[in-house]
Amino acid sequence: MHPVNDNRHSGLLVPVLTPFGADLAPDHGRYVGLCKALLAEGAGGLAIFGTTSEANSTSPGERRAMLEALLAAGVPAARLMPGVGSTSITEAADNVSMCVRAGCGGVLMLPPFYYKGVSDDGIFAFFAEVIERAGKAGPPRIYLYHIPPQAVVGFGHDLIERLLDAFPGVILGIKDSSGDWDNMRAMMERFDSLDVFCGSEEFMLATLRHGGAGCITATGNVNVADISRLGRIWREDGADDLQAKMTAVRKAFSRKPPIPMMKRYIASRTGHEDWARVRPPLTGVGAGEVPALVADLETIGYAPGGLFEAIGAVVPA
Amino acid sequence: MHPVNDNRHSGLLVPVLTPFGADLAPDHGRYVGLCKALLAEGAGGLAIFGTTSEANSTSPGERRAMLEALLAAGVPAARLMPGVGSTSITEAADNVSMCVRAGCGGVLMLPPFYYKGVSDDGIFAFFAEVIERAGKAGPPRIYLYHIPPQAVVGFGHDLIERLLDAFPGVILGIKDSSGDWDNMRAMMERFDSLDVFCGSEEFMLATLRHGGAGCITATGNVNVADISRLGRIWREDGADDLQAKMTAVRKAFSRKPPIPMMKRYIASRTGHEDWARVRPPLTGVGAGEVPALVADLETIGYAPGGLFEAIGAVVPA
Repeated sequence: MHPVNDNRHSGLLVPVLTPFGADLAPDHGRYVGLCKALLAEGAGGLAIFGTTSEANSTSPGERRAMLEALLAAGVPAARLMPGVGSTSITEAADNVSMCVRAGCGGVLMLPPFYYKGVSDDGIFAFFAEVIERAGKAGPPRIYLYHIPPQAVVGFGHDLIERLLDAFPGVILGIKDSSGDWDNMRAMMERFDSLDVFCGSEEFMLATLRHGGAGCITATGNVNVADISRLGRIWREDGADDLQAKMTAVRKAFSRKPPIPMMKRYIASRTGHEDWARVRPPLTGVGAGEVPALVADLETIGYAPGGLFEAIGAVVPA
Repeated sequence: MHPVNDNRHSGLLVPVLTPFGADLAPDHGRYVGLCKALLAEGAGGLAIFGTTSEANSTSPGERRAMLEALLAAGVPAARLMPGVGSTSITEAADNVSMCVRAGCGGVLMLPPFYYKGVSDDGIFAFFAEVIERAGKAGPPRIYLYHIPPQAVVGFGHDLIERLLDAFPGVILGIKDSSGDWDNMRAMMERFDSLDVFCGSEEFMLATLRHGGAGCITATGNVNVADISRLGRIWREDGADDLQAKMTAVRKAFSRKPPIPMMKRYIASRTGHEDWARVRPPLTGVGAGEVPALVADLETIGYAPGGLFEAIGAVVPA
């Protein structure tokens, strides 16, 4: 298991997929099972309630119940970095407060993503208001979530500097899902106190070599052993080969939209068809896509260790 | 007062501004006062909880309390078209169910707006799921909310046709805030059973002449008398002159971002500084912008009737 820094998240954090039952409700049993399996197979932490988790396709009440199920099952809160973003200060503050009270190691916060073209002043004011409100529950530990392909609204570097200056010890890091390496590198060069996580393992080795904190990536759900291993051996011989293999696995799962493709593959590996289900507006991927994926993965030498056995052993609640 | 069709919304519907107190909580007293003033001054209905309302900057609980305050104050539910969109089926269905139970004349529903690039199949499945869930509360009356500048995700015409075919009597109309007249005209020509509302009064006369149902426009908050009058006299002489004047008033309020500019102007006209407040991520407009706006409005011959006296007479709760 990857050693977790006492104070900061590091290494691979997995934005955990959310399994849904036939009624589209989150399936707590399978969910807890996946989270435990990912930690057991090497994940440094779990960035639950992210984009890959279809978190914005669920309600705050559903997410609260999922968090409570994890904690009740003994998943350590310190290993969690739940997504807490919302379009409203009210809801974002409620989400952050919940995580602070639970003792989560951090939270991953989207910018308000409804209005487009808002000013840095407006985004700053949003964070300031949320931090003040949530601060009543305890000191928040916030990682910024920069994902322009979905949120459109993003974090420019001057805004990040303002936030770091105004809220030291509260703004701890950023997940950069822009896919833009130049942006990640520029942030690592400019901000000493910002823990930068790349949003795709494609950039993980480069991120670690530039002093970044780690990686938060969708494909962690299906390739946790290799990706978390890179977090340990990145200074050693073989790191480049491992990086190339990880990137190839990611590309294989991207033959279709990755969220339903990974869910379909887990369904195939565990024999639980329910795993393939997504919530609208996402749409599922059919079983017919699996053989070509499996062929690609065999060519690459994909070796997920005991992950699927661990997931598959879980009986739904 | 504009006569309201027994079954369908028509004419001018105002996406009502939301007044916030010093703690940024919605101010129910001022809110009810504005809603009543807008109806008294000619609005055919109130499209509460829209983009202009900063609705996605509030929580479902805050919106529920505002709706309850309106109903308790005697605002007729049949005149309301609350915004109900969400990124999740769970929350959208809860919102629609609340409005169905309250007897609202309709609801205005955004597409799920977090994931970008989703398929028509995914958006269709989202609406189908929400309609099924909310249907337990009674028959939903849904107007689609097409606003690509904010939501990015929108409604293509083939998707609209699928929704109309699958849910006749449930999908009643659309608000088109694309700013693209060709899109509005094409929908009016293609769909007999779809009530088309333009999202800006700039297109109101053209919309009515092409068989559209009316207009849902931000500037209705400050120019309700003239805009609703066009809904009555559009077949008469003087309609083009009135349209030109309305368009000029809209342009004057667009000298700054219209939501804070209108709020600032209401603060100026009523003497209640609280009116100028917006929620982050929007930012306020200073009082220094008012004189130039007033000069523009005087040149245009802006005549808001008794609107500001009606708003100003309200004492905050």
